[in-house]
Amino acid sequence: MIKLDAINALDRAAFVARLGNIYEHAPWVAEAAHSSAPFSTVAALFAALAQAVCNASDAQRLALIAGHPELGDKLALAKPLTTESQSEQQGAGLDQLSGAEFDIFTRLNRAYRDKFAFPFIICVRRHSKDSILAGFQKRLEHDRETEIQAALTEIDRIAALRVGGLVAADATLKLDGQVSTHVLDTHGGTPAVGVAISLHELSRLAPPRLIARSLSNADGRTDPPLIAGKPVPIGQYEMRFEMGPYFAARGIASAEPPFLATVPVRFGVADPEAHYHVPLLVTPWSYTTYRGR
Amino acid sequence: MIKLDAINALDRAAFVARLGNIYEHAPWVAEAAHSSAPFSTVAALFAALAQAVCNASDAQRLALIAGHPELGDKLALAKPLTTESQSEQQGAGLDQLSGAEFDIFTRLNRAYRDKFAFPFIICVRRHSKDSILAGFQKRLEHDRETEIQAALTEIDRIAALRVGGLVAADATLKLDGQVSTHVLDTHGGTPAVGVAISLHELSRLAPPRLIARSLSNADGRTDPPLIAGKPVPIGQYEMRFEMGPYFAARGIASAEPPFLATVPVRFGVADPEAHYHVPLLVTPWSYTTYRGR
Amino acid sequence: MIKLDAINALDRAAFVARLGNIYEHAPWVAEAAHSSAPFSTVAALFAALAQAVCNASDAQRLALIAGHPELGDKLALAKPLTTESQSEQQGAGLDQLSGAEFDIFTRLNRAYRDKFAFPFIICVRRHSKDSILAGFQKRLEHDRETEIQAALTEIDRIAALRVGGLVAADATLKLDGQVSTHVLDTHGGTPAVGVAISLHELSRLAPPRLIARSLSNADGRTDPPLIAGKPVPIGQYEMRFEMGPYFAARGIASAEPPFLATVPVRFGVADPEAHYHVPLLVTPWSYTTYRGR
Amino acid sequence: MIKLDAINALDRAAFVARLGNIYEHAPWVAEAAHSSAPFSTVAALFAALAQAVCNASDAQRLALIAGHPELGDKLALAKPLTTESQSEQQGAGLDQLSGAEFDIFTRLNRAYRDKFAFPFIICVRRHSKDSILAGFQKRLEHDRETEIQAALTEIDRIAALRVGGLVAADATLKLDGQVSTHVLDTHGGTPAVGVAISLHELSRLAPPRLIARSLSNADGRTDPPLIAGKPVPIGQYEMRFEMGPYFAARGIASAEPPFLATVPVRFGVADPEAHYHVPLLVTPWSYTTYRGR
Repeated sequence: MIKLDAINALDRAAFVARLGNIYEHAPWVAEAAHSSAPFSTVAALFAALAQAVCNASDAQRLALIAGHPELGDKLALAKPLTTESQSEQQGAGLDQLSGAEFDIFTRLNRAYRDKFAFPFIICVRRHSKDSILAGFQKRLEHDRETEIQAALTEIDRIAALRVGGLVAADATLKLDGQVSTHVLDTHGGTPAVGVAISLHELSRLAPPRLIARSLSNADGRTDPPLIAGKPVPIGQYEMRFEMGPYFAARGIASAEPPFLATVPVRFGVADPEAHYHVPLLVTPWSYTTYRGR
Repeated sequence: MIKLDAINALDRAAFVARLGNIYEHAPWVAEAAHSSAPFSTVAALFAALAQAVCNASDAQRLALIAGHPELGDKLALAKPLTTESQSEQQGAGLDQLSGAEFDIFTRLNRAYRDKFAFPFIICVRRHSKDSILAGFQKRLEHDRETEIQAALTEIDRIAALRVGGLVAADATLKLDGQVSTHVLDTHGGTPAVGVAISLHELSRLAPPRLIARSLSNADGRTDPPLIAGKPVPIGQYEMRFEMGPYFAARGIASAEPPFLATVPVRFGVADPEAHYHVPLLVTPWSYTTYRGR
Repeated sequence: MIKLDAINALDRAAFVARLGNIYEHAPWVAEAAHSSAPFSTVAALFAALAQAVCNASDAQRLALIAGHPELGDKLALAKPLTTESQSEQQGAGLDQLSGAEFDIFTRLNRAYRDKFAFPFIICVRRHSKDSILAGFQKRLEHDRETEIQAALTEIDRIAALRVGGLVAADATLKLDGQVSTHVLDTHGGTPAVGVAISLHELSRLAPPRLIARSLSNADGRTDPPLIAGKPVPIGQYEMRFEMGPYFAARGIASAEPPFLATVPVRFGVADPEAHYHVPLLVTPWSYTTYRGR
Repeated sequence: MIKLDAINALDRAAFVARLGNIYEHAPWVAEAAHSSAPFSTVAALFAALAQAVCNASDAQRLALIAGHPELGDKLALAKPLTTESQSEQQGAGLDQLSGAEFDIFTRLNRAYRDKFAFPFIICVRRHSKDSILAGFQKRLEHDRETEIQAALTEIDRIAALRVGGLVAADATLKLDGQVSTHVLDTHGGTPAVGVAISLHELSRLAPPRLIARSLSNADGRTDPPLIAGKPVPIGQYEMRFEMGPYFAARGIASAEPPFLATVPVRFGVADPEAHYHVPLLVTPWSYTTYRGR
């Protein structure tokens, strides 16, 4: 991480060397943005970069779009892929596609390129595999003008996250979401301490994938939150609370099996930069959950 | 189904012909019980049969136990199996064992017989595959005397269900449990009508198995209940409520994906003759569930 | 209560003798309705009476309106008041007005008569004192034509309830509402048995008025419902559940005072013919309530 | 407020001048405690004072007890009452007793003094009028030895609060409780912003007394909490949430009156130094409340 001051101290060449890959294969964006230096906030830095794209010609923008790699296309690995692209595509599990999934992605990539003559671009860190597929299907129905705009929006999102990853944040650039919980034992009237909690990403194509696991602390919360410090990928999730062992450890008489053992709470994330607080108020015989804050 | 009056009108030979298989391969039970005819209730009829087993010698009781088929043992199909046994073993899916499951059951059957010198007997209609396995593991640790009693208890339960299936019920013999639900839309303040609801049996060995599906009626309930008119097999269940389409159809604005789409409620059944009422109070952003009545 | 068959068997004179007071001081309504006899349902009987009012001349309808007593006007007791009117006005406590209340009602009655030249008519059995006052204030702003219609609507409602009180019901005439509850102990996972429950009518003018009290039965419900078999007066209510003694009797350790002792649930009734089911799911540390069915 | 450093810098005479009234009319306590100076924490300062009482003779302790004013005794105002006592007795409304209440307190004070030969002492800031009365009744049944201990415990509590009020706190002396809330609108899936919330102290002797009122902020909380920075008096409370105007302002269609308008939540406080977090999850048709954290 570099401090903003250090960025501001760079001359044009050094600035372009540092930020030339924020927009994929388009150092001209950093070059143009440098004219607006110094930047008072990280958000101002990003805004200057994004403005440079706005100010460019249609042809430059099309070239920017065309310069992006194809999504999840293993064959694309032969092409020069920026290090940034590589690590981002790991996030949604695009580097671990099954054969069937690979076929689907390959077919969709081809259909998209056939229709629009540029690759399908999506900010992978804001998505799960399922929401990328849903995005493909929805965007394939658009016209070309709409998709040029969509691609530029996604490119800006990718760039914003890259800026956030490069320059020490100052809270002006809101890039992070959060998934958190809070377990209240309304049988005992206390926070539920020591409950095993896990978070799974659900998929129509594959079995649930474990994303995070934790034990509730003395306050009934997980520390840190289950997801924090990054966007929460758009998708379906299931939080699981192991209430059986918790209540058994408190000596609460129960038949075998108990009425409640694993409590699953399934929820969708549509806004990667939002806070999804999903508490559980629970007794051995009941529970309440909701989207809180 | 025969009426109790008709049973009471039978002479000893006809009575034994009709009820000789209530206790597996043991027509002597019916023969002894006939002395207590006529019976004022179905429960009295069952009690007379059970008493005949009590009055028998230890040797007779051991023979009764030994006369039962081995559980889920396909090889056993070669042996004379009463029609009653056949249809009962279908219930828990014991006629659809995978190769791995078959191996497990075969190994456990053998271990049990090796230890106790009689077959493992369990009232299959009160159990899921998982709870049968749990029962095997627990009962293998017992001593022989305990297991003779356990086997006789299970034989009585099997007999009670056979009596209930043969003679038109009169509510004196409580053999049925129930799984039901009630969906209240606390966003609109009305019953939730037309919600797709499904009930699945969970298993450690196999994927969830769909048991029942229904649509909630004008009252927010399913009609009939999801399980009724028979014991609810001991085990783990998941009820699923498709709330996404329900709220979408009511025009409630939602992001994509919505916060709540499929709501799963997982619960354990320990008492097959009990009523498990599992309601859902639900908005697009919250829900409450509990064991009700 | 008379059976509908008996009503149908009456000749015109006897019919008018029996039903002449259904519409206050207007035996001509019954006389006209008799032409439609026999009636297949109680609803058909009421419809014939209401139709007779519709068919009458404007002058007859105005006379019908003018023939009604003034509401809560103790001075009016000197005038000939039908027995039906007398018992109806007791319902909302209009026979127990404080001096201040009496002054308010007198002033409103006078203002209404001054503006419209006929008395304020409202179906008292569907209202609380507070909602009558709210009705006065709202209706005083109307024009005369609107109020003639409002008065006739109320007169029909009064008549419908009188028909329902005279003739044995047959479920075709829906006149009753209901207030009921169901207490679930989600600490113990059972219905809450033996909970003291009371229902109070709230008022802006006076302290809460106890309307019903009961103990929850083995099912956690009150038997009969707190209000049933009549309209639920429009107004504000508070249901109170004495959970302190209930949980103490179950030996649940608690500080003094306990977190929850009396649980008040306050709710409004806007539809007197509806079912207000107000359950409580409760532990010593939490509760949920909702409008159920 | 003085800083602890400044206290530590005082010589014995100045120390006694400053802290001589921490224990009522007993400067000898401060004098003895000064030997332990300097104090590393405020808790250590309080502990030294309390230890001085422990180290004193029985006669000194009895004199300390006897030196306290009688509770709520207006006649006592003629006696020399420390300023500390005066402001403390205002807290529970003991300076606003009705005639009937005054009689009750006078009678109880007399009964207590008759039995034990010293005044009834209770840390008023930890109590409501009702819990003081309950304390009187319970403690009148004790024997003298028990009451001497009870009086000394209360005197220590009074002293601890006086120390906390005199010396800038350093979190080592836990004297404060809290009452807070959080309103979640589970109809809209957001915090409920702008809800009018009030907190009332309930009493068996008098009408509810308004203690605090607030509007929920953008987070659905009140800022500051309804009670904070002092003990929460033991007693019964009612929090009221004005949900009618809130939902009406959001354009949610409702009958008149709405099902939920004012939502009262009644709860007891037994531990004045605890945090009572009482959230509300609410729709126009339902709500959930619980003791949270």
